[in-house]
Amino acid sequence: MLQGGMTVIAGVSGGADSTAMLHWLVQHAKAFDIHVIAAHVNHGIRGAEADRDEAFVQKLCGSMDVPLRILHADVCAEAKKTGEGLEECGRRVRYAFFYQLCEHYQNVCIATAHTLSDCAETVLLHLTCGAGASGLAGIPPVRGNIVRPLIAVTRTQTEQYCKDYGLPYVTDSTNADASFSRNRIRLRVIPELKEIDPNFEQAAGRAARSLREDEDCLKQLAKQALQTAVCRDGWKAPLLCGQPRAVRMRALYFAAKSAGAGRLEQKHLDALDRLLFSGGGCTLPGGCTARVEQGILLFPQKTADYCVPLCLPQTVLPDGRVLEIKILDRTTFEKEKPKIIFSNCLNYDTITSDAVVRTRRSGDSFSPAGRGVTKSLKKLLNEHCIPPSMRAGLAILSCSTEILWIEGCGPSEKAKVTQTTQHIAVVKIKECVGNGKSDAR
Amino acid sequence: MLQGGMTVIAGVSGGADSTAMLHWLVQHAKAFDIHVIAAHVNHGIRGAEADRDEAFVQKLCGSMDVPLRILHADVCAEAKKTGEGLEECGRRVRYAFFYQLCEHYQNVCIATAHTLSDCAETVLLHLTCGAGASGLAGIPPVRGNIVRPLIAVTRTQTEQYCKDYGLPYVTDSTNADASFSRNRIRLRVIPELKEIDPNFEQAAGRAARSLREDEDCLKQLAKQALQTAVCRDGWKAPLLCGQPRAVRMRALYFAAKSAGAGRLEQKHLDALDRLLFSGGGCTLPGGCTARVEQGILLFPQKTADYCVPLCLPQTVLPDGRVLEIKILDRTTFEKEKPKIIFSNCLNYDTITSDAVVRTRRSGDSFSPAGRGVTKSLKKLLNEHCIPPSMRAGLAILSCSTEILWIEGCGPSEKAKVTQTTQHIAVVKIKECVGNGKSDAR
Repeated sequence: MLQGGMTVIAGVSGGADSTAMLHWLVQHAKAFDIHVIAAHVNHGIRGAEADRDEAFVQKLCGSMDVPLRILHADVCAEAKKTGEGLEECGRRVRYAFFYQLCEHYQNVCIATAHTLSDCAETVLLHLTCGAGASGLAGIPPVRGNIVRPLIAVTRTQTEQYCKDYGLPYVTDSTNADASFSRNRIRLRVIPELKEIDPNFEQAAGRAARSLREDEDCLKQLAKQALQTAVCRDGWKAPLLCGQPRAVRMRALYFAAKSAGAGRLEQKHLDALDRLLFSGGGCTLPGGCTARVEQGILLFPQKTADYCVPLCLPQTVLPDGRVLEIKILDRTTFEKEKPKIIFSNCLNYDTITSDAVVRTRRSGDSFSPAGRGVTKSLKKLLNEHCIPPSMRAGLAILSCSTEILWIEGCGPSEKAKVTQTTQHIAVVKIKECVGNGKSDAR
Repeated sequence: MLQGGMTVIAGVSGGADSTAMLHWLVQHAKAFDIHVIAAHVNHGIRGAEADRDEAFVQKLCGSMDVPLRILHADVCAEAKKTGEGLEECGRRVRYAFFYQLCEHYQNVCIATAHTLSDCAETVLLHLTCGAGASGLAGIPPVRGNIVRPLIAVTRTQTEQYCKDYGLPYVTDSTNADASFSRNRIRLRVIPELKEIDPNFEQAAGRAARSLREDEDCLKQLAKQALQTAVCRDGWKAPLLCGQPRAVRMRALYFAAKSAGAGRLEQKHLDALDRLLFSGGGCTLPGGCTARVEQGILLFPQKTADYCVPLCLPQTVLPDGRVLEIKILDRTTFEKEKPKIIFSNCLNYDTITSDAVVRTRRSGDSFSPAGRGVTKSLKKLLNEHCIPPSMRAGLAILSCSTEILWIEGCGPSEKAKVTQTTQHIAVVKIKECVGNGKSDAR
């Protein structure tokens, strides 16, 4: 957990847990060869009490000769701005401060005073949300560069430690308010469970550890499953369907997250899972959509509509791609014919000076070369088996009100290359590099 | 859950849950094409109240025209005999009765009235024991031929059902006794958790379902891991070491169980896990031992010591194997030499009429042929690299106080075959068939 030469940024609220931790770290700083720094956040929520706590921590650190960094935050205002809950917002602000402090050091970790009691509370709190292994896994001893030196001891033990060493500590008055869920669990639920087994916190800790191992293993398998199923546009649905549900649901979670989905609930994952087997689409939080088309799970990136003037030889499209037009005379065209995809050739002379490259619009119709019909673009794209998820992003070359060429469909009857066409425009769309939306982390 | 043409044996205690279930099953018997039979166990624990319940169930079934089977058991006496807890013993007796009733029918299942509330209680009860996913997975809707038609509804809902249909039911007076752990959870813990989320039971049910999926997947992987690692004597330790801990611990559980281990706790699995990495041995409940030797995890079967007179040509050993002695004259011996393993040849004339086949005894010493030394058997077996786990079962051919031949080591100096030996005894030990101790279920 702690390595020699490390700088340890200890989060100190002034309560029994963090006071005990700070004392313990300072006592062992020499033996562990660590450098301890305290960090305190005044959330500005509990008024005078918060200022009392700040003064207490200042005195405490002074007495232990520990450098202290303090942040004054207005968590109420911040939470109002972001729409977060007070507790959630406070946690975010706190960790942001800790991480910010980390930037000043090389070999650094953040120590938080979470105890076995906190872990047991977290397990029960997550149970009331119907969480799976990931939530019921409680608080891990180490996460990234955050360490919890007290995770194996109970709150009662930290209080005893403070007593043993004559350490004063402050008590958060809101701790006694059972209208907060965590307090209710601490004050009313855990004491009852301790009547059943006095070592309830240890038991919950064992359960959490075991579920953490399960979660680690299943997450790993989910990532492997995604790697195996990955293809150009997304993931091969049948390969994901073949996975056990425990692996599949985690794979769907990672896939949706990598596509930018917001906070995913069970119902969203269930919806994704149904897609996998029956196809179709669904909407996810964060304005993300998912589709399963032709056996591929994909998360179509919302493409902003655009309409830009055609530039020769290259038009940079707002979606980051580049439309390139090469103009060939008849002779060169005949020579290069074998290398040319004909759906990308059109009569250059039909391209007027008002030509634009744009995305599709509702009501677009098109007369594909050699078909003798005019159809709605929707019908035509269906016929061409272009998945709906890709239609929004198709580049269309249009002059005044007439479409001359559509990406993936080819030229219009009017723009097609005939035996007499003298100047042939060969269109090529170059993908931008690094658009790896199927990268599963 | 229920299929047409089925006989459903409904466990009925007379409480709200089982009364509602019986009524529901009877109401839907025609539509589901099922035949309902009620089964009641009078555990003989609550005296007059138990008799009241029995009479109630009799009346209930009479009013619904449902055949009723009743078992009178003395669970107190039975529990005293087996050392089980009352509740554990009651459950065993009850299910044994249900299974016994099943034997009279072809297409049959057992319906128990477990509700979502029971499931939530079970999850919390297992959390107080520090159980992993397997315990926290609660009560499955279907297990073997046991079905739980009420597993998605709460106890409150079954009580409402009884009210709606004007169904009377009995109440177990011990239900109010919070000194029973389950009652404490029902009466004191769950009401507090429902203050946090009124749908706590549904949340716990969701958590249980998710953990059940995890458990199913990890169990399956553990069985696959065992199959891959299996070898003649046990399982290849390095292959098991390469598995994630979540899979490994379950594989160790199955392996120990298949070797006849009793009730395994976390500490036993931890001990087994340490063995895998560092070798050595440990003792498990149920008189089972485990060892890792030369990279193999094995569970040496305790071999009863024996000493039986040598019979020619075959001696059936008490461990189920057969020791066979073929006597060759010099000429035949010379001819068959290439096919003979010399460690299994001895001078027939040294075998006296008091010869026995026996297992090793402490203090045994032996003079191996051609070595010119007499050593303790222990030292010798070490030199022969015979793993301790296999030593107890070695067959030893002995005359009066002298050992002539040891399985795996060969003849003694005295019994060895020389150029002048006229009658040569060739020993062969035939394994009994079907001794597949490495079969992982």
